Amino acid sequence: MKPVVELVSTGSELLNGRSLNRHAQMLGARLDRMGFALARDTTVPDNLEAIQEALRAALGRVDVVIVSGGLGPTSDDITPEAAAGFFGRAVVTDPASLAALRKRYDRLGRPVTPAAERQARIVDSAAALSNPVGVAPGERLEVGGKTVFILPGPPAEFVAVLERHVLPWLDAAATDRPRSDRQSLMVCGLGESDIVALFDKAGFPPPELEVAYCAGPGRIEVRFGAGARGGDPESAAREAGRLLGGHVYSVEREEMEEVIGKLLIRGKTTLSTAESCTGGLLGGRITSVSGSSVYYRGGLIAYANDIKATRLGIPLEILERDGAVSSAVAGRMASAVRERFGSDFGLGITGIAGPDGGTPEKPAGLVFIALAGEKFVRMRKYRFGGDRDRVREWSVRMALDLLRRHLQGVTEPDAFGTDGP
Amino acid sequence: MKPVVELVSTGSELLNGRSLNRHAQMLGARLDRMGFALARDTTVPDNLEAIQEALRAALGRVDVVIVSGGLGPTSDDITPEAAAGFFGRAVVTDPASLAALRKRYDRLGRPVTPAAERQARIVDSAAALSNPVGVAPGERLEVGGKTVFILPGPPAEFVAVLERHVLPWLDAAATDRPRSDRQSLMVCGLGESDIVALFDKAGFPPPELEVAYCAGPGRIEVRFGAGARGGDPESAAREAGRLLGGHVYSVEREEMEEVIGKLLIRGKTTLSTAESCTGGLLGGRITSVSGSSVYYRGGLIAYANDIKATRLGIPLEILERDGAVSSAVAGRMASAVRERFGSDFGLGITGIAGPDGGTPEKPAGLVFIALAGEKFVRMRKYRFGGDRDRVREWSVRMALDLLRRHLQGVTEPDAFGTDGP
Repeated sequence: MKPVVELVSTGSELLNGRSLNRHAQMLGARLDRMGFALARDTTVPDNLEAIQEALRAALGRVDVVIVSGGLGPTSDDITPEAAAGFFGRAVVTDPASLAALRKRYDRLGRPVTPAAERQARIVDSAAALSNPVGVAPGERLEVGGKTVFILPGPPAEFVAVLERHVLPWLDAAATDRPRSDRQSLMVCGLGESDIVALFDKAGFPPPELEVAYCAGPGRIEVRFGAGARGGDPESAAREAGRLLGGHVYSVEREEMEEVIGKLLIRGKTTLSTAESCTGGLLGGRITSVSGSSVYYRGGLIAYANDIKATRLGIPLEILERDGAVSSAVAGRMASAVRERFGSDFGLGITGIAGPDGGTPEKPAGLVFIALAGEKFVRMRKYRFGGDRDRVREWSVRMALDLLRRHLQGVTEPDAFGTDGP
Repeated sequence: MKPVVELVSTGSELLNGRSLNRHAQMLGARLDRMGFALARDTTVPDNLEAIQEALRAALGRVDVVIVSGGLGPTSDDITPEAAAGFFGRAVVTDPASLAALRKRYDRLGRPVTPAAERQARIVDSAAALSNPVGVAPGERLEVGGKTVFILPGPPAEFVAVLERHVLPWLDAAATDRPRSDRQSLMVCGLGESDIVALFDKAGFPPPELEVAYCAGPGRIEVRFGAGARGGDPESAAREAGRLLGGHVYSVEREEMEEVIGKLLIRGKTTLSTAESCTGGLLGGRITSVSGSSVYYRGGLIAYANDIKATRLGIPLEILERDGAVSSAVAGRMASAVRERFGSDFGLGITGIAGPDGGTPEKPAGLVFIALAGEKFVRMRKYRFGGDRDRVREWSVRMALDLLRRHLQGVTEPDAFGTDGP
């Protein structure tokens, strides 16, 4: 079996805006780590013919197809019927899955309705794959040298059945040696074309290497892989690291909040946050790391202006003179929360997330970020583009990066902001 | 032209776990509001043949295909080349887009490198579609009665070009009358099979109606549409509303945080939050609504235990006796933040998000949520399943729903939690 897989995501909710399709990313990330490739995701509605057509096309291209969704209790869950029809088999109830379902419902004190029992059905002669976090089992079908996995749609269940049953099977079945010689750099504080310009100036990278870029708000991954004619991704990544300097925040594909966490733990230092326009998202991001209670003490969400005065002690004359969205207030927020929460560092964010609330002098997207330490306060001013979500996401990223640069002793600033008021 | 569109999402980063494909949701939601259908999303890597093959297959099924991504400055951005090759045309530089690009880079004080200039290229004889929030233009190609749109990949740019150019074009081009008779209910506090059981008991819904369910953490959308044999979605939604009672939080597809905002504004009341395991996500969710400063005063992220004592005044003996993760502490957090932030209501969340930090008595997923008003404190206890992200997302949802039930005078509790300690 070649280490290539296709995904068929089923669900009308993935195509009418109700839900975000997370399956391709969750599957792709895991296959990538194993050296496998996810060659395609085809997302189709809860429609028998569309599911069968996508399955037929995928099986024409690859040996292993994973189908997600449509195993639930409701009438629009029809993936077992679609697969059974495609392979000319019947749909049956899996006794072990039904017993597990009854046990689980009993434990939760919930009635086992006929709708609930529908979740124990599989295609005849398929192998049921137990679902450790839900009731609908996955299943594996072998037909004519090809393999089809059907997995439940809820993301936690999809991942649980994938990790318990599918990935080990793939690992054992792969005959070709999967590719694995790739190297990534995570960059914050430069744009894509800044990176390309720095590379071009240095005549980098050598043509035999494959380079891929993946950019998000305040975050670019540059990834090197050996091309058809060879090339050394590891030495390329080292050279790229030299060219990009302090803008590189990880060479191990970590998220910025993980990098920050490790640096704070290493220095035995602690952090607190004071947020206005981000409303708690910075704290939420920091605490997405399990174990962050070691270095994160907490924070204040000073959304109303008088809260900035009463709960952070920022003098009213400063709020009136400079305005709540100002470099001075960001600096005061950072140093006040640092002091009041007894942490080594304080981060402050104040800005106008938009779309409302802007003025010609202080337009939507204007954000001030400050870092306070024992003997310093560093302030940065940004003008972010895009909608409310994007402005808030950039604000969180650049606040974390401001701390990261300080902790790593990086002296060059990011390319997006300016210092001072 | 039939009101049916297909999407081809290009980008290796969408298949190797680096990025989440948001295009299908962003496009699908907008088409759905217009009465159009997104029939399929095909996600392919940055590979000439794969893009062309997906384009060929999509054009065999529908009249309008939207292609996203691959218009950027880097060497792996090859969508114009793929489309040009497919249609037997050349790639050219669009003078107007190049001029706009130069102006934008000048304004930002950034150099116009050859890599940057690549972003002004389009397929020969295509109509360039100006990009109001980025530099790479979109383009529209007409070939043999079919239309292909190519849009930039960054989500904000994708949406901006979509809304400015593509949706108005679709609106003008549609000849069939788009379907529009659908009705949704948003439900929080019941599981999918609870809803189906309530419906079954009442012999609901009538068979001529189409029903679709879309479930996420703490949130289910039930949607009624007229089937092939007719049916009245509006009266079905009214009947479903009677059956589901206070578990319905919106009949207009609003998010819970929008519903809360409107209720608080209507009552001229205000809210503040005290969070432990959610680390600021509750405040972040509330402030995702533009204009939330009218009713949201701010909050405290009491992540470290001593912060709960010093910044919220929770007596140490309670923290020691009941533990920081307890009904008593959640209640104290809610009432203390309400009082200290001068708001009408306070919400408190304390729990163990996991995967670490659990004990046999207090396992990961155990969360206490409290709502405090002037004369009452209401406490709920939950045991959420799934990973850290899922536990935190459920916590945020159920906290908002606790407030929603109070504001709407709903007396029935949700089906997931229990009252008291």
